[in-house]
Amino acid sequence: MDAHALDTAYQVLFVSGTVAFSISGALTAMEKRFDPFGVLIIAFSTAVGGGTIRDILIGKTAFWLQDTLYLYLILLGTIISLFFRKKLDYLRNTLMFFDTMGLGLFTILGAQIGLANGLSDISSLVLATITGTFGGVLRDVLVNDVPVIFRREIYATISIVGAALFLFLRKFEYFEYSAPLIPVFFIILIRFWVVHYKIALPNIYKK
Amino acid sequence: MDAHALDTAYQVLFVSGTVAFSISGALTAMEKRFDPFGVLIIAFSTAVGGGTIRDILIGKTAFWLQDTLYLYLILLGTIISLFFRKKLDYLRNTLMFFDTMGLGLFTILGAQIGLANGLSDISSLVLATITGTFGGVLRDVLVNDVPVIFRREIYATISIVGAALFLFLRKFEYFEYSAPLIPVFFIILIRFWVVHYKIALPNIYKK
Amino acid sequence: MDAHALDTAYQVLFVSGTVAFSISGALTAMEKRFDPFGVLIIAFSTAVGGGTIRDILIGKTAFWLQDTLYLYLILLGTIISLFFRKKLDYLRNTLMFFDTMGLGLFTILGAQIGLANGLSDISSLVLATITGTFGGVLRDVLVNDVPVIFRREIYATISIVGAALFLFLRKFEYFEYSAPLIPVFFIILIRFWVVHYKIALPNIYKK
Repeated sequence: MDAHALDTAYQVLFVSGTVAFSISGALTAMEKRFDPFGVLIIAFSTAVGGGTIRDILIGKTAFWLQDTLYLYLILLGTIISLFFRKKLDYLRNTLMFFDTMGLGLFTILGAQIGLANGLSDISSLVLATITGTFGGVLRDVLVNDVPVIFRREIYATISIVGAALFLFLRKFEYFEYSAPLIPVFFIILIRFWVVHYKIALPNIYKK
Repeated sequence: MDAHALDTAYQVLFVSGTVAFSISGALTAMEKRFDPFGVLIIAFSTAVGGGTIRDILIGKTAFWLQDTLYLYLILLGTIISLFFRKKLDYLRNTLMFFDTMGLGLFTILGAQIGLANGLSDISSLVLATITGTFGGVLRDVLVNDVPVIFRREIYATISIVGAALFLFLRKFEYFEYSAPLIPVFFIILIRFWVVHYKIALPNIYKK
Repeated sequence: MDAHALDTAYQVLFVSGTVAFSISGALTAMEKRFDPFGVLIIAFSTAVGGGTIRDILIGKTAFWLQDTLYLYLILLGTIISLFFRKKLDYLRNTLMFFDTMGLGLFTILGAQIGLANGLSDISSLVLATITGTFGGVLRDVLVNDVPVIFRREIYATISIVGAALFLFLRKFEYFEYSAPLIPVFFIILIRFWVVHYKIALPNIYKK
């Protein structure tokens, strides 16, 4: 794959991930019976929340203020959710696929941005996990739930392991191009394996 | 009205809006039986929360760190709330008037700051709505309620429509001076109309 | 005490305060039966939340992105909490001592950073209180509780009084070196007095 095709592939994945995160937010808001505008705000917070907190932590302007494409994608995700509300249940697996893709991509993007801003590996790892998962945390705080990532599905654990894998691979010249892609596929695979076999972290409250 | 008188008028409106937002926060905190200091923090978060999130998103220092007038206004609003607690019920309509004025003014100010920072219309629109409404969102998150703007009174919808009106009017030279004022009055009028006739957005969960 | 010894003393106190704040966060998360990674995130948010919000408000990069020592301290606090979970109950008084030390130190540090950034006394006072207490607020928001500082133990009131004392003392040359230390001891003493005698602010809801 040449650099241009890779760029295009990334773009497609980001667009899909953003729309998927918006739908995830919109569905949560609709379960709480928010009005349409509330649904839009939750979709917005879920989709750009992680990246916004990342930008703020490193002292940058929020990315979506400059690149308004994201705002249109969120509007799209919200409209899809409002119109196909009853059918989205049948699409849960498809949605989880895109959501996981978003998780993987945003995680690795966070690590890359951390490194590009001169941060250490450990700081980039934290920034990566925040980018990947804090949109969902913000969504749950705004609808007044305990953030689901603290309790279920090893969601955040997958993000941190994926980011660690990326930071490790990029130290080898051999993985110059594939370092960002391998962890994304790794995150998607592990997530599906975890969800399919209902795997959970060992319960620390039973010993 | 000359420019100086207009400036003075704005000042008076901002002062009133800030005090009104503080009282709205203080009342919410007192309903939850917070201690006086907790009441002050919620008043503070409600009054400057929206503008602070706006400043952070565009990479600026929080405005109230430079202009301490706001801190005294919040203290004033909190003291008024603590002393006249039992009488504030009779003043609900007056309070709503000031709160709506705050909503209108802070919304338009957010749009103006967005444009002054070189943002596109759509980004300025989002920034305007965040400035106008996220103080209330922060208040509700801190007292552990589902943010009221996601459920009631088309509050946020009014803010976004007012901001859109401002961004539209300012494209015409004819509205050079009145572009910020018309949407403020529009927001106040619509809010009162909505509250008086108990108008709600169509319920999307009934179809 | 010479300047070098003082620096070392501060370092030890900060390290202890950060670990204590992490443990406080981890304990709260374990009461809610979060998974280990969730426990880590809450420990992290409690320990660096206040300082992070301070940095963001004054337009700086979050301090822990540069100084990764904090990340290791948080990991340490979390591991201690996970392993000695059942024994931490016996250590509540010890923990409260460190937590109060953290409160005192982070409060005064916040005031110092405010002044160093050219802020007025009143703005520095607000920044100091945010630095000292908002880690705990963030912890409680994330686990979906009403922030405990709004209700109990005059926690935030102690922070604000300590910060005011610091800002007052530093105006006198006589207190050139001791201005930061006296309020820290003051905060610790008052907190223990308050907790020991179960002192509360007057209940404003009874009159």
